Amino acid sequence: MNKIFFLILITILSFGNRSLAQQTLSPIQFNKVSYIKDGKPFYLISGEFHYFRVPKADWKHRMELLKQGGGNCIATYVPWLIHEPKEGTFDFGSESFREMESFLKLAKEENLYVIARPGPYQYSELAYDGLPEWLSKNYPQIRAKTLQGQDLRGGLSYQHPLFLKKVKTWFDKVCPMLAKYTISNGGPIVFVQLDNELTGVHFWNGGIDYNPETMGFGKVRGKYPTFLQSKYNTIAALNKAYGTNYESFEKVIPIEAKSYDKAEDLRHVKDYYDFYFSMAAQYLDTLATMIRGNGIDVPLIHNAANPGMIPQFKEAVKLIKPPFLLGMDSYYNLDQSWGQNNPTPQFAIGTFCGLEMLRMMGYPSSIFELASGSASDWPAMSATDAKASYMTNIALGMKGHNYYIFTGGPNPLGYGATTDNYDYGGPVSANNEVRPLYYAQKEVADFIGKEKWLLNAELEHDCRISLDFEYGRASNYWKGKGKFAVSSPEAFEFMSKGVLTTAMLSSVSPELCDLSNPDFLKESTPLIVVSSSAMSADKQRNIVSFLKKGGKVLLLPTIPEVDDDLNPCTILKDFLSNIKLRTPDSGVKRATFGTINNVRKKSLFVFEKMPDNAEVIGKEEATGKPIACKIKTEGNGTIVIAGISWMASHFEQNQMLLYLLSKLDYQQKVVCDNQNIWHTLRSDGKNELLFLINLNTSVQTANIEYTNLEGKLVKLGNVSVDAMSVKTIKQNND
Amino acid sequence: MNKIFFLILITILSFGNRSLAQQTLSPIQFNKVSYIKDGKPFYLISGEFHYFRVPKADWKHRMELLKQGGGNCIATYVPWLIHEPKEGTFDFGSESFREMESFLKLAKEENLYVIARPGPYQYSELAYDGLPEWLSKNYPQIRAKTLQGQDLRGGLSYQHPLFLKKVKTWFDKVCPMLAKYTISNGGPIVFVQLDNELTGVHFWNGGIDYNPETMGFGKVRGKYPTFLQSKYNTIAALNKAYGTNYESFEKVIPIEAKSYDKAEDLRHVKDYYDFYFSMAAQYLDTLATMIRGNGIDVPLIHNAANPGMIPQFKEAVKLIKPPFLLGMDSYYNLDQSWGQNNPTPQFAIGTFCGLEMLRMMGYPSSIFELASGSASDWPAMSATDAKASYMTNIALGMKGHNYYIFTGGPNPLGYGATTDNYDYGGPVSANNEVRPLYYAQKEVADFIGKEKWLLNAELEHDCRISLDFEYGRASNYWKGKGKFAVSSPEAFEFMSKGVLTTAMLSSVSPELCDLSNPDFLKESTPLIVVSSSAMSADKQRNIVSFLKKGGKVLLLPTIPEVDDDLNPCTILKDFLSNIKLRTPDSGVKRATFGTINNVRKKSLFVFEKMPDNAEVIGKEEATGKPIACKIKTEGNGTIVIAGISWMASHFEQNQMLLYLLSKLDYQQKVVCDNQNIWHTLRSDGKNELLFLINLNTSVQTANIEYTNLEGKLVKLGNVSVDAMSVKTIKQNND
Repeated sequence: MNKIFFLILITILSFGNRSLAQQTLSPIQFNKVSYIKDGKPFYLISGEFHYFRVPKADWKHRMELLKQGGGNCIATYVPWLIHEPKEGTFDFGSESFREMESFLKLAKEENLYVIARPGPYQYSELAYDGLPEWLSKNYPQIRAKTLQGQDLRGGLSYQHPLFLKKVKTWFDKVCPMLAKYTISNGGPIVFVQLDNELTGVHFWNGGIDYNPETMGFGKVRGKYPTFLQSKYNTIAALNKAYGTNYESFEKVIPIEAKSYDKAEDLRHVKDYYDFYFSMAAQYLDTLATMIRGNGIDVPLIHNAANPGMIPQFKEAVKLIKPPFLLGMDSYYNLDQSWGQNNPTPQFAIGTFCGLEMLRMMGYPSSIFELASGSASDWPAMSATDAKASYMTNIALGMKGHNYYIFTGGPNPLGYGATTDNYDYGGPVSANNEVRPLYYAQKEVADFIGKEKWLLNAELEHDCRISLDFEYGRASNYWKGKGKFAVSSPEAFEFMSKGVLTTAMLSSVSPELCDLSNPDFLKESTPLIVVSSSAMSADKQRNIVSFLKKGGKVLLLPTIPEVDDDLNPCTILKDFLSNIKLRTPDSGVKRATFGTINNVRKKSLFVFEKMPDNAEVIGKEEATGKPIACKIKTEGNGTIVIAGISWMASHFEQNQMLLYLLSKLDYQQKVVCDNQNIWHTLRSDGKNELLFLINLNTSVQTANIEYTNLEGKLVKLGNVSVDAMSVKTIKQNND
Repeated sequence: MNKIFFLILITILSFGNRSLAQQTLSPIQFNKVSYIKDGKPFYLISGEFHYFRVPKADWKHRMELLKQGGGNCIATYVPWLIHEPKEGTFDFGSESFREMESFLKLAKEENLYVIARPGPYQYSELAYDGLPEWLSKNYPQIRAKTLQGQDLRGGLSYQHPLFLKKVKTWFDKVCPMLAKYTISNGGPIVFVQLDNELTGVHFWNGGIDYNPETMGFGKVRGKYPTFLQSKYNTIAALNKAYGTNYESFEKVIPIEAKSYDKAEDLRHVKDYYDFYFSMAAQYLDTLATMIRGNGIDVPLIHNAANPGMIPQFKEAVKLIKPPFLLGMDSYYNLDQSWGQNNPTPQFAIGTFCGLEMLRMMGYPSSIFELASGSASDWPAMSATDAKASYMTNIALGMKGHNYYIFTGGPNPLGYGATTDNYDYGGPVSANNEVRPLYYAQKEVADFIGKEKWLLNAELEHDCRISLDFEYGRASNYWKGKGKFAVSSPEAFEFMSKGVLTTAMLSSVSPELCDLSNPDFLKESTPLIVVSSSAMSADKQRNIVSFLKKGGKVLLLPTIPEVDDDLNPCTILKDFLSNIKLRTPDSGVKRATFGTINNVRKKSLFVFEKMPDNAEVIGKEEATGKPIACKIKTEGNGTIVIAGISWMASHFEQNQMLLYLLSKLDYQQKVVCDNQNIWHTLRSDGKNELLFLINLNTSVQTANIEYTNLEGKLVKLGNVSVDAMSVKTIKQNND
């Protein structure tokens, strides 16, 4: 019955969607570089501000504080549990904390934009993650399940027909109300968010969802069997891929994500995760359709919970009709278990990857929840640290953000999951105190206001580092190495904590690059490819094309042998011909490159075979075996292959990276002689700004020079950057 | 043959040991409060300084720098791999980096004490952890093994007879040489260290050792069967305890440490860990016997790798003949994976537990490797952070320390495991540069010199918190909860990250306390007992005795039901009579204590039964069910039982702790109104010093008052403490 209902529902929703085909354009739009307001670049500075927590009497005053602090937008959850406390009983006004419309009206009066986040999920330290108590209690069948059939702590099954039915009732109530206040209807709402931090409620509560009803295990036309059928066509093909003997697609059951030796098992697991992510994407799309069907025409947005979760959205960003914008959330300490209390350089590497992934997906890189306070009263968050993190984000390409939170207040009784007073340590306290964090944020807004051209700026770079989205997803399903030399999660970690970190430490100016997008072929700066044993055919083909047109490539730490489905795929290897790497015996091995001896490594790979024209440029010292070589390819390309992986830790790694790049006609854009000052150079073609980032707890000094837009060398001499701060330097020709 | 040899060896060693029965007293001794030199308290300020790394030409200059910086001692490894590069070929002089004796002579000339660390294990970023390459290579049978029989990465099997035979050859060579230079023989050596960071080489390389030859699996009189027989006497008793059907002790095989539901399986695992730790202790004792047999009479020392590993040394400290001293190592960042780059308050909690455990074991709390540089060139270590951590350690009771490292130099070729230049970022660089860290350490030495009385000082406290060593060990073998309400690892974590942290945040002045030592009965300040479902009979009996003599107890979060072996043990419960706690249903529950509402918790337990005279002082708000009560006991004792556990995060927890203590006539010694300034008050009965600790990255200000030695209230008014610093305040009567 549920399934029949579901089919009807989908049909209705599809019609609803189609009726929105000619949607009006919201005055706030975005392109791949920035937000756009009335056709001009616009920096979104939003602050989270909950009408259900901040007392109504304080709304106006605090909105004005937000504006005075440089903000132009407020974001608020619209929690289902607050507005449908009993099933079927909607309440938008019995008490002031439920007066969503008064709040939206006031925001409009105050000339503030609004990002509305009607869920269904909210989290926000609300009871039941913001869902009504009755939902999971009265309908236990909609709970997400483990593979063993137990309930996941708290999470529901996104695509369960009954859950979607309840969501539709909620959306059909709340969305028409929100639609009245969209900017196209003269209201303040510029964006509406779909759900919240998708899949977090599963992953953080015990793993992904295996609800058999939702997934259709064992059922003809069940979603999982259908997914498998569309991938494999015949059950024989699936059985060959999995090493199994299933009689039909309906009979296939998923297996757990754990360390497997066989590629067959790994495929079996990977397919389920791909299926799960596609289900999550369909869920977001279903929500989008419901929202559109209720007359909301502003861009829809979503926030990946952290940079590491962005690759999960591959299917979602394809499925959801534009205008849709993916951003991410970013916190550096929400409670004592986070280890670091401040935004360390290690943390910035993760943020950089996140902002770059969003850019590569075609979005203006946005942080929809940017640490502004903490879910815990302790450990303390300092305004200085926060400002350093904000400025670092701008240096790394952030084009819009929402402070979580700008201001808080008491949780309506029974609706808070943590404490009764949701102060959160925000810049304006629950009792209207203006904290140092407020002034730190104002300084950031002043900076943005002064350097508006930065909105159109891009990262000046002198090389590219490949970021493989599939490697980012693989950490979910690929445990252990299996029979492979380098697993994809290892490659992702090496890319960020090894290559990218070493690049920052050695004053290289990298941009990240998606090998599946042939746009990278247009540029000639060296391309650093971090590869696992697996890489898809299109990416391998693109690398070959790049080499064929004379490109320079540094390949680390191995050469791919299979594609993402672990089927043989040796396009790159075949192009290079007669080449083979293997892991040397364990024990103490010395990696030497030119005059750089004993480079600290994680793994070493030695060449068993090399093309005749290969020039050896790195050796395992004890045995003299080659570990790095330079090869000239067809079409005058050059590839350096270095069989080494590492975690950034020692000076020699920095020297090695520069040495390897030097074999590829690398031209260093910025030279800074202190590894603890990181830099980015941003430019819109006319203006140029050098960001000097010091995320260490002590002052740092460096001798710095860089090549400016006109190609001239700018010598800055000795520059000192305070502890936990970012210094910006405008062009200053010698 | 090996076993026979081993028995002979032990016999020889035992004789050797006996011949040392009347050993001379070294001029440097220690008691349970401090080190003693010539009968007077003495603060050990040592710096790690390796003759095999620092060029001989620089030895003298750097030793003088060390003294000028306030140091009085140097510590050095004496690496086996450097002095027996080929088996049977000893080399103490072919090259200057092998000239151990020249180094010891020079130290003597320079009036510096020496801590000699001849291994066998060293780690120290040396190849093969400091063991000769030939050892593991030529004798694979001595490698430590996993339960599945695979080699542990790098680790050897401590008590393997062949390994011990090779160690004896090494010790019989090196120890007589060291003996010539002990302080009793007019030399500089004051301590000799046994091995290094015991068990680390197993735990960090894949787990503990199951080498079947060493452990004697399946063998009559094998060590493991013998251990089991001495515990259970009959195989029937073991089978009852394990729920197994073994025919004999020889047939018993260990099972893996993983989450089990049955207490029987947990016992099976626990016994193996107890056996393993007793084997590790026997190994240390064997080394001690070898060293003593070679005429070394100075105190022997050992360094637990970190605070969490101290409880593993229960057997060792009993077994090794005095004088023996256990200390620990302490690092806050050795590479990028550590998360925090600076000594956070969270880190200080761990250090506090470690220093207190050492004190409770009867030692002057010592850090034998104190972070002074890092194994990685990045992330950066700042002198300011380091000084804050050193001063914090002194505030928390550190009575002696060794900086790791004071100064470094090039690794002899092929002997370094990381890089060729072992600079380590120490206070004096590999090329004689004096770094800011040097001056930070000099300031610390100056402080120690100025406040010599601190050596005899103890922690002024206003309550005690129980630290159960068995709970600390349990994290190794007790995974998951089993069928118990609170596992022992959970209780340990709650003690440190919940109760102790909240105590520091709420300006309570706690001392830690070992319930198995009845000394705690002598004092009347409130005793906070953190209990798992398991607590040994002696500890339960001691709590009852304390109550019977009128003691005040706060018991959290549950009442023990079994002993450490998980056999029923309800001494405390029976004493309280008619009492029962149970976990409430999951979901949102509000814990309310007096006027403090909705305290953030991890788990809640409600009373099913309470004695008639119990006064309810805490409730689950939604249901009104009691979660905390106060009970008057026989002998005029008072116990408050609060069924709540938490991780320190919110202000309400601080208020709750003070509220619960207020029910026990608690008198707060120091009142500080800013949770981010932590304090300790140390006194020798005549002098008193208040340490104000700010391990946050921003300046902190507080209104502070305290009751001084004479019982007068000292009002300090508003005090400001710089970011990452410790301020000391001398008595200043109003």
